Amino acid sequence: MARARAAAGLCARDPQPSEESCTQEDLLLAAAYVSDAEHNRNVRFETSPQTIRLYYFYNHWAMRAATNFFIFLDLSLALFEEPALFPLPFLATSIAEVLCLTAFFGRLVHFAKVTPQMVFWKDTKNICIMVTIVLTLIDLIIYGSLEAVSIHTVRWSRALRPVFLINFPQSRQVRIQIRRTFRSIRNTLPDILYVFLLFLFSMLIFSLMALKLFGDRGLRTAGGSPYFTDILEIAFELYVLVTTANSPDVMMPAYDFNWWYSLYFITYIIINTYIFMSVFLAVIYNNYRKHLKNEIRKLAYLKRHKMIQAFDILKVKVGSEFVVKEAEWKRLAKIVAPNISSSHLELLLKISDEGQKGHVDKTNFIRLADLLNIQVVTMDVKRHPLEAWMPQVYTSSLSLFIQKMVQHRIFVWIYDVIILINAVFIALDEKNALISYAEWLFLSLYITEILLKLYTYEPRAYFGRKQFWNWFDTLIIIAALVATVANATIQSASRRSSQQILDIVLVLRVLRLLRVIVSIERFRVIVTTLINIGPTMLTFGGLVLVVYYTFAIIGMEMFHGKVQFFDSNFTTPGALVCGNPALKDTAFARDRYCKNNFNDLASSFIVLMELTVVNQWHNILPRRSRVHRGAACCLEVTSGRRINYGVLGLRGCATSLGGLVP
Amino acid sequence: MARARAAAGLCARDPQPSEESCTQEDLLLAAAYVSDAEHNRNVRFETSPQTIRLYYFYNHWAMRAATNFFIFLDLSLALFEEPALFPLPFLATSIAEVLCLTAFFGRLVHFAKVTPQMVFWKDTKNICIMVTIVLTLIDLIIYGSLEAVSIHTVRWSRALRPVFLINFPQSRQVRIQIRRTFRSIRNTLPDILYVFLLFLFSMLIFSLMALKLFGDRGLRTAGGSPYFTDILEIAFELYVLVTTANSPDVMMPAYDFNWWYSLYFITYIIINTYIFMSVFLAVIYNNYRKHLKNEIRKLAYLKRHKMIQAFDILKVKVGSEFVVKEAEWKRLAKIVAPNISSSHLELLLKISDEGQKGHVDKTNFIRLADLLNIQVVTMDVKRHPLEAWMPQVYTSSLSLFIQKMVQHRIFVWIYDVIILINAVFIALDEKNALISYAEWLFLSLYITEILLKLYTYEPRAYFGRKQFWNWFDTLIIIAALVATVANATIQSASRRSSQQILDIVLVLRVLRLLRVIVSIERFRVIVTTLINIGPTMLTFGGLVLVVYYTFAIIGMEMFHGKVQFFDSNFTTPGALVCGNPALKDTAFARDRYCKNNFNDLASSFIVLMELTVVNQWHNILPRRSRVHRGAACCLEVTSGRRINYGVLGLRGCATSLGGLVP
Repeated sequence: MARARAAAGLCARDPQPSEESCTQEDLLLAAAYVSDAEHNRNVRFETSPQTIRLYYFYNHWAMRAATNFFIFLDLSLALFEEPALFPLPFLATSIAEVLCLTAFFGRLVHFAKVTPQMVFWKDTKNICIMVTIVLTLIDLIIYGSLEAVSIHTVRWSRALRPVFLINFPQSRQVRIQIRRTFRSIRNTLPDILYVFLLFLFSMLIFSLMALKLFGDRGLRTAGGSPYFTDILEIAFELYVLVTTANSPDVMMPAYDFNWWYSLYFITYIIINTYIFMSVFLAVIYNNYRKHLKNEIRKLAYLKRHKMIQAFDILKVKVGSEFVVKEAEWKRLAKIVAPNISSSHLELLLKISDEGQKGHVDKTNFIRLADLLNIQVVTMDVKRHPLEAWMPQVYTSSLSLFIQKMVQHRIFVWIYDVIILINAVFIALDEKNALISYAEWLFLSLYITEILLKLYTYEPRAYFGRKQFWNWFDTLIIIAALVATVANATIQSASRRSSQQILDIVLVLRVLRLLRVIVSIERFRVIVTTLINIGPTMLTFGGLVLVVYYTFAIIGMEMFHGKVQFFDSNFTTPGALVCGNPALKDTAFARDRYCKNNFNDLASSFIVLMELTVVNQWHNILPRRSRVHRGAACCLEVTSGRRINYGVLGLRGCATSLGGLVP
Repeated sequence: MARARAAAGLCARDPQPSEESCTQEDLLLAAAYVSDAEHNRNVRFETSPQTIRLYYFYNHWAMRAATNFFIFLDLSLALFEEPALFPLPFLATSIAEVLCLTAFFGRLVHFAKVTPQMVFWKDTKNICIMVTIVLTLIDLIIYGSLEAVSIHTVRWSRALRPVFLINFPQSRQVRIQIRRTFRSIRNTLPDILYVFLLFLFSMLIFSLMALKLFGDRGLRTAGGSPYFTDILEIAFELYVLVTTANSPDVMMPAYDFNWWYSLYFITYIIINTYIFMSVFLAVIYNNYRKHLKNEIRKLAYLKRHKMIQAFDILKVKVGSEFVVKEAEWKRLAKIVAPNISSSHLELLLKISDEGQKGHVDKTNFIRLADLLNIQVVTMDVKRHPLEAWMPQVYTSSLSLFIQKMVQHRIFVWIYDVIILINAVFIALDEKNALISYAEWLFLSLYITEILLKLYTYEPRAYFGRKQFWNWFDTLIIIAALVATVANATIQSASRRSSQQILDIVLVLRVLRLLRVIVSIERFRVIVTTLINIGPTMLTFGGLVLVVYYTFAIIGMEMFHGKVQFFDSNFTTPGALVCGNPALKDTAFARDRYCKNNFNDLASSFIVLMELTVVNQWHNILPRRSRVHRGAACCLEVTSGRRINYGVLGLRGCATSLGGLVP
C-alpha cells in the first residue's frame, strides 16, 4: 500500500488542494483497483505505469476469451484422440495440444510480468500450471516417439488437463465456487474422518457377524453362487447395501432360510444407511455453512481494502477531510466502466455525492464497486408505433375492444385450454390426416396470439431486456413453427433420411406445451427461483464435469475395448457377452449393459453419470473389474470417486437449499 | 384463571399475610399446575377438590402404564389374527379386543370427568377415539356373525388401531413429536402443491416426448417386452426413474439404438431426480424449521402461564410484592416431586430464594418447573472398600503400582491391541481347537481387566448412574461370558438343536469388539451425540411404525395368500413362480422374491421396509398389482405411502440435522 501511495504521490500527497488533476497513470492505477473490487478479483500487481497497462491487457475480455477457448480446445481433444468418437491422426491432436500449451505458457508469462516475482512463485496455482505443462510435453514426446516405433503406451497426462480449467482464474462466480468447494472438502476431511472410521468399524462388526451367521449355512444366491462365505465379498456387499443398490437381493437367501435373519439386515440398514449417512450429511452441511460465511467475510474485506487503496491514490484534502473530486470521480468511472451511459453516470454520482458538494467522501467512494454491479433498467413509456402511424384506426372502438380482450384474464385461460387440447392431440396418433391438419391449426392459433399481443402492447417494451417470459414464449412458438415447416418439407419430399432432424421436430413440438408455465403465476415464480440459483448450479455442474473428465480419461486408458457393443439386436456372435467371454452369466450381460463401456469419451461420461445415479452401480462396475483380472484398484477409484460424489452431491443439495432458505 | 383464583381464594386473597398456611386443596391444585408445566402437559381441568384428586389419579404412572399396555396389546393382536404368525381362535382375539376397547373407553370417561364438558367435546382427539371404538365394535359384530355362518369378510377396522396410539396423550416428548410432525405435514402441503404440480407437468412433457421419440421404433427391453409404446407405462417408468430404482435399465434400449437418446434420460434425471427432489427437500426443511420454532415458542408460553396460575394460588403479600412463603414452597415441591431428596430440595430452595429472605418471588417461582427437570448428580468421594477393609495391603507398594498401571494410557492401548487380535481370531475358522481355546484366553483377559479396574476405582463410583460407558463395557463382557459358557455347554452336550441360541452366541461374540469404541475418545463423543438425539429418532421411528402398521393391515387384507413361499431350495412344484402362474417370467420370480409377501404381519413389515429403502421397489410392487388384476389402487396406495415416506424420511434427516447443527 505504501508503494501504491508512493507511486501515486503526485496526486494524493499534494499538501494543498490544487486545481490540477491527477495524472492519467494514477487514474489508471485507481481504476484497476476499483475494477478488481467490482469483479472480486484478488491479484497483487506491480504499480509501475507500464505494468498497469499490461495488467489492463491481461484482464481484457479478448485475452480471457482466448484463454477459455484454448482450455476448451485442450479438453475437447479427448474426443479426437484414440479411443476416439471422431478419430484424427496423432499428429493433428498433438499439434493442437502443443498450441494450447503454448497459449497457456504465454498467459502465464503475461501474468508473471504483471505480478511481483515473490507473489508469483509463492502461488501454488502457477506452479501447478507449469508442472502440468512440462509433464504434458514430456508425455507427448515419449508417447510420440514410442508411437513412431509402433509401441502403444498410456497417454497418462491427459487426465491432468482439468488442471488448466481449475487453475486459470475464471470469472468471479466460478472462481469463488471452485475455491469454496475445494477448501470445504479439505476442511471437512478431518471432521469427517472419525465418523468415517466409526462407520468402517461398524462395517467390520457387521461383516464378521454375517460371516459367523451365514458362512457355514451353504446358502446360495438367486444366481446360484455361494452366499456370504468370504469376508471380503461380504464387506463389499455390505458397502453396496449402504448405497441401497443391492437391497433386497442381498437379504433374500438369508431371509428365505429363516425370517429372523431379516432383523440383521434391517438393523444394518438403519444404522449404516440411515444414521451414518445422515451424520455425514450433517457434518458436511455444517462445515459448508461455516466456511462459506468465512469466505464471504474475507471477500468483503478484500473488496473494501482495494477500494481504500484506490481512494488513497485519488484523495485530496477539502476542509478537514479527504475526498475525491467530482471530475476525478467521473474520469475514474469512465475508465472502469467505459460502456456506461451518461445518464447512468449522473445517477451514480448523485447517489455518491450526497450533499451535492462537488466531491465524494471516503464512505461513498468505497460503495462505488457495489454501485457499478447494480443493473439499471431505463423505462421509457412509449406510444405504440401503430398509434403514431395510424392513430384513428388504432384508437377505433373495434381496436380498443381487441386490446381490452387481449389484456383480459379469460384470454389467457382460453389459450391454456387450447394448449391442453394440443397436448391430447400430440399424444394421439399423428398418422391420422385430421390430426396432421390440427397441427397447423394450433400453430396458427399460437401465432395469432403473439400478433395480438404485439398489437396490444408496445413491441419494444414487450421484448424488453428483462421480459424473460415474453422472449421464452415467442421463442418456443418460433421454434415450433420452424419445426412444423421442416417436418412438412421433409414429408412432402418423402425422404425420411435424417432421423436427427425428425427427432428435433418431435421434441420441439412437445416443448411447445411449456407455454402453460408462462400463464400460471405460481409456476413462473418457481421457475424464476430455479433460474436465479442457476449460475450456482451450473458452476457446480462444471466442477462435476471436471471430475468426470479425469475419471473418463483414466477409465478409457484402463478399460478401453474390454467391453464391446455390436448391434442393438444382439445378433452378432458374442454380442450377448459384449465380446468378452469373462462376462458370461453375469448380471452385466443379462441386463444387456454392453453399451456401458469406456470405449469413447461420450460412453465414459454416460457410464459415470449412471454411477452417480447409484442404482445398479455394483452391476456396472465389479464385472468390469473382474474382466480386468484383479483390478481391485478400479473399485478403490470408484469408492474414492463415490465418496467425492457423496460430498459434491450433498453440496449441491446444500447449495440449492442455501439458495431457497431465506 | 378467574375460576382458579376463586377456588384458591382462601389462601391467595387473604388481604394481609397470616401465619396460617394454604389449605391442602390449594396446594394440590397449585402442584397440579406445576406438574403440568414440568411435563409440558396442556390439559384444562376442573378445579374442584375432588376433580383435582381425580386428575392426579389420571396422571398416575400406573394408569398411564395400563393404557400403554392396552394400546400395545391392541396393536399386537394382528400377530394372532388371520393371517397370523401365531394363530389364535377368533373368539380369543375378539375378547382381547373388547377388553382393550373397554379400557380405552374407561380412560376416556375418566378424562371426561376431569376436564370441563365444553373442552372435552371440542377436542377432536376424544371424538376420534370414540368414533374408532364404535366402528371397531360394529366391525367386530359384523365379522363375528358372518364368521359364524362361515362367510369370510374383511376386518377393515384393524387399520384404525394406530388411532389409539396417536390420540391417547403419551409422554411429553412423543406428544410434541407427533403433533409437530402431523402439523408440519399439513402445513407443508399447500407450499409443496405447486412444486408437485410443476413436477407432474414436467413428467407429462417428458412422457409425451418419450412416446414420440421411442414409440414407433419397435424397440424391446432386455426382457423382450415392447419398450415405451404406451403413455401410461412410460409415465410409470419415468416415475420409477425419479426414485432411481430402474436406472440404467430404462435407458439401455434407447441408448443401444442411438447414443444421442441418452441425453434425453440425462436431462430427465437432472431436472426431475436432482432439481425437483432438492426443491421438495428445501421446501419441507424450510417449513419444518419455521413450524418447529412456533411450536417451541407456544410451549414456553403455556409453561409460563401454568406457573403463573400456580403462583396466583399460593401468593401472599410481603411488603410491596407478592411472594410464596418458604414453607408453602417446600410443601408444594414435596407434592410435585415426592421422591426428591431433602438435600436436593434444599439446593433448589437456595437457588429459588436468592436473598435467603424466607420466601420465593414470582420470577424465581416460575423457574421451578425447569429446575425440577434438571438432573442433580450427587458426588461422594468415598474411599475404596478394600482400603477400609485391609488398608496395609491396599496401600502397599505393589498394590499402588498395579493401580498406577491400570490408570496409565498404555493399559488402554494394550487392551485395544488384544481386541484387534480377537477380531482376527473371530474371522478365522473356529473349528480349529487352538482357536477355540484362544476364546477362553480372551475372555479371561477381559474379565481380568474389569476386575483390575474395580480394584483401582471405587466400585460405586465406577458403576455410578452417569457412568454409561463403564456399564456398557461390563455388560458386553458379561454377555460374552454367558455366550461362551452357553456355547461350551451346548457343544459338550453335543446337541446342536437350538439354532437360535447358537446364533445369539455368535452375535454376542462379535459384539464384544464394540469395546474398542469405549477406549477411543472421539468415537465415544460421536456415539454419545447419537444417543442424545436417540429419543427424537425413536419417536420418529415409532411414527414410521404406525404408518407401517396401517399399510401392513391393508396389505394383508388385500394381498394375503396371493404370493406363496414354499421352501428355500425352491424344489416344490410351483415354488419358482411363488405358487402363482401369473408371476411366470417376471423379475419378481426371477430374483426369488417369493418371501416378500403380505401373508403375515412380520412379512408385511419387512416388505414395507424394503419399499422404504426404495431399491427394486418397482419389481416388488407392480407384479403384485398384476396378480391382483388391475389393482391399480395398489400403486396409488404405494405412491401415497411413498410421498408420505419421502416427507417423513426427509424430516428424519432434518431432525438429525437439527440435532447436530448447533
